[in-house]
Amino acid sequence: MHPAANIPLTLLVVFGSAKLLAEVFERLGQPGIVGEIIAGALIGPGALGWIAPNDVLGALSDLGVMFLLFRVGLEVKTSELLRVGSTATLVATCGVLLPFLGGWGLMALWHARHTESLFVAAAMVATSVGITAQVLASHGLLDHRASRVILAAAVIDDVLGLIVLAIVSGIARGKVNVPDLMLTATLAVGFTVVVAVWGTKAVGGLMQRAEANLRAGEVQFNIAMLMLFTLALLATFAGVAAIIGAFLAGMALAEPVGQRVRDLTNGVAELMVPFFLAGVGLHFDVRTFANRNTLWLATLVLVAAVISKLVGCGLGAALYGWRDMLRIGVGMIPRGEVGMVVAQLGERMGIIPPAIYSVVVFMAVATTVLAPPLLALAYRGLSRGRVVQEYQIG
Amino acid sequence: MHPAANIPLTLLVVFGSAKLLAEVFERLGQPGIVGEIIAGALIGPGALGWIAPNDVLGALSDLGVMFLLFRVGLEVKTSELLRVGSTATLVATCGVLLPFLGGWGLMALWHARHTESLFVAAAMVATSVGITAQVLASHGLLDHRASRVILAAAVIDDVLGLIVLAIVSGIARGKVNVPDLMLTATLAVGFTVVVAVWGTKAVGGLMQRAEANLRAGEVQFNIAMLMLFTLALLATFAGVAAIIGAFLAGMALAEPVGQRVRDLTNGVAELMVPFFLAGVGLHFDVRTFANRNTLWLATLVLVAAVISKLVGCGLGAALYGWRDMLRIGVGMIPRGEVGMVVAQLGERMGIIPPAIYSVVVFMAVATTVLAPPLLALAYRGLSRGRVVQEYQIG
Repeated sequence: MHPAANIPLTLLVVFGSAKLLAEVFERLGQPGIVGEIIAGALIGPGALGWIAPNDVLGALSDLGVMFLLFRVGLEVKTSELLRVGSTATLVATCGVLLPFLGGWGLMALWHARHTESLFVAAAMVATSVGITAQVLASHGLLDHRASRVILAAAVIDDVLGLIVLAIVSGIARGKVNVPDLMLTATLAVGFTVVVAVWGTKAVGGLMQRAEANLRAGEVQFNIAMLMLFTLALLATFAGVAAIIGAFLAGMALAEPVGQRVRDLTNGVAELMVPFFLAGVGLHFDVRTFANRNTLWLATLVLVAAVISKLVGCGLGAALYGWRDMLRIGVGMIPRGEVGMVVAQLGERMGIIPPAIYSVVVFMAVATTVLAPPLLALAYRGLSRGRVVQEYQIG
Repeated sequence: MHPAANIPLTLLVVFGSAKLLAEVFERLGQPGIVGEIIAGALIGPGALGWIAPNDVLGALSDLGVMFLLFRVGLEVKTSELLRVGSTATLVATCGVLLPFLGGWGLMALWHARHTESLFVAAAMVATSVGITAQVLASHGLLDHRASRVILAAAVIDDVLGLIVLAIVSGIARGKVNVPDLMLTATLAVGFTVVVAVWGTKAVGGLMQRAEANLRAGEVQFNIAMLMLFTLALLATFAGVAAIIGAFLAGMALAEPVGQRVRDLTNGVAELMVPFFLAGVGLHFDVRTFANRNTLWLATLVLVAAVISKLVGCGLGAALYGWRDMLRIGVGMIPRGEVGMVVAQLGERMGIIPPAIYSVVVFMAVATTVLAPPLLALAYRGLSRGRVVQEYQIG
């Protein structure tokens, strides 16, 4: 193989197989996203072995999920998200408590070690909003009341989830450092609130001055990119995931920027998101389930993950009626990359053995694959037009 | 440093410093591109040392130059490029012969080893059209007759350059395998001619059928991406650089695709091209010139590279009058990444010692940095409007 062929070859194999299976799934009446994830699992080391996870694919996947959340943020108006703030907080809190208790209880019944149980429980907490957001966006359903609650609750439960992870790692290390925990919690909550509440106003002023004074081309887009990278970086410093920063950057820019920035952002997202989706599949290796015990545990953990989130988040939205409860509960099911980050951390700390690692990754991938068809069912009969009819008038 | 911060941090540092220096250079009346290259040299290991070349930056840079050439291809109509074909062939041929002889002669006078001279000469052959294309595109000058000749000649001289490289590596290995050389030459020339001549027609039909039959979203863009990656890959198999495939893919798609694909492509290019430009700078390490001998040789090689290309290509376009001769000669000066590929190959084969490697990289970077201001001078007084006035009427 010619060495210079690597980059085009990697791009062609990953992007091509993702789009091919997306087309197949669309024809079967299933969301194309599921096809893209399964494409990753197919070409990955667990099946065909055409491609293995590497630094470059990891970076493209990170870029993909950042632009996915950034694009979703660009479609969300801060004021409308804050309007569902109290319901979203309730949804997020119940949706953190129940999965944590469910995961812990299940692992305890399975006679797992105490720290092992805590890590699996922590991995079940944080919702990965990327997949849900992509499904809702592709059906024009981001304007729906339930969708807004999902987005806001996912941001909040990511913040809560990372606080839980900080506590659990502290316990695993044999000490809970209360001042450090308080600092992490304050930073995470503070960062989110500050950007969500004051972001739009600050960015509006900055953008006007920049456009008036700068000479280089595509000023709006370049500033949007710098905001995106800066907030993603600050988010990691504040102790939350980079994608939360990306989402908040999009939200802060939603009103100040014009169609041109949205078009250019769409270009990057269209190219990069398949690398995120295929990357989720790439990390799933079916061979680890040759052991029957592991297979059973994986099934039980998956069921616990789905039910605890569905019930927890659904209950949090009890005032909205059962249809929105169902939509919100289903929308919060996917754990995706956040669960994988917890699993990876636990493995590196020597707390989670390989079998449990596989179980957690299976839970993260399976909840992610289950969500799109369940979401399509929960939102059945709704389209952009119907959303407006059902909620937006008056 | 939080490990999850790596990707946003890398993006912020490289993109941010490139755009910052672009703005500074624009204010000084210089092309922003030069600022982006110098930003890479500044933050790289040779100066501030904030960032070192790595796999991820290499991939982003490769993506950047692929999208740069793809975007240029999208603005070029095949028929108009073929119209300047004979002049371009003459320009490319003279622009390969003179730099090769110049480089060889200079190294021979310097008493370098025979194979060393051959490699330096080969590194001076192939034009890197990326920078020139970006300068011409940013000033709306791609429609100019001289610009068309530059683009066509750069494609042809890349093909010639890779044949020269094949011959030189053969000699260095102590054997020239004539059948292999014939095959490489035939494949390289054949691939280019086939795509340039029949590409548009084939793609037009494919695009229509795809749009009528496929269900997934953004069909045109996804097919354009697959064509881009496929032709880039095929180009490397045919023995030419991936970016030639990217350029030909753009050319074949120029007529079949609409504004939407151009907008989405622009998004990727706007984000990625700075990584290519900063990447060119990142590879330049000023510290290797502490040795005065090396510094002298670098200066002489640079002068030989500039003059031989300017005169060779200018002579090839003698029929166009001195102003277009100058524009074409200047436009063909940058060697960029092609020269670096030759240097790298020579180093890996153990033929080029570190000092000569630095000299070749210096020549590649310096010709690239020199080109934009010289081009701006050569095209002075022309803008999109004036081009139409000067040549397009009648």
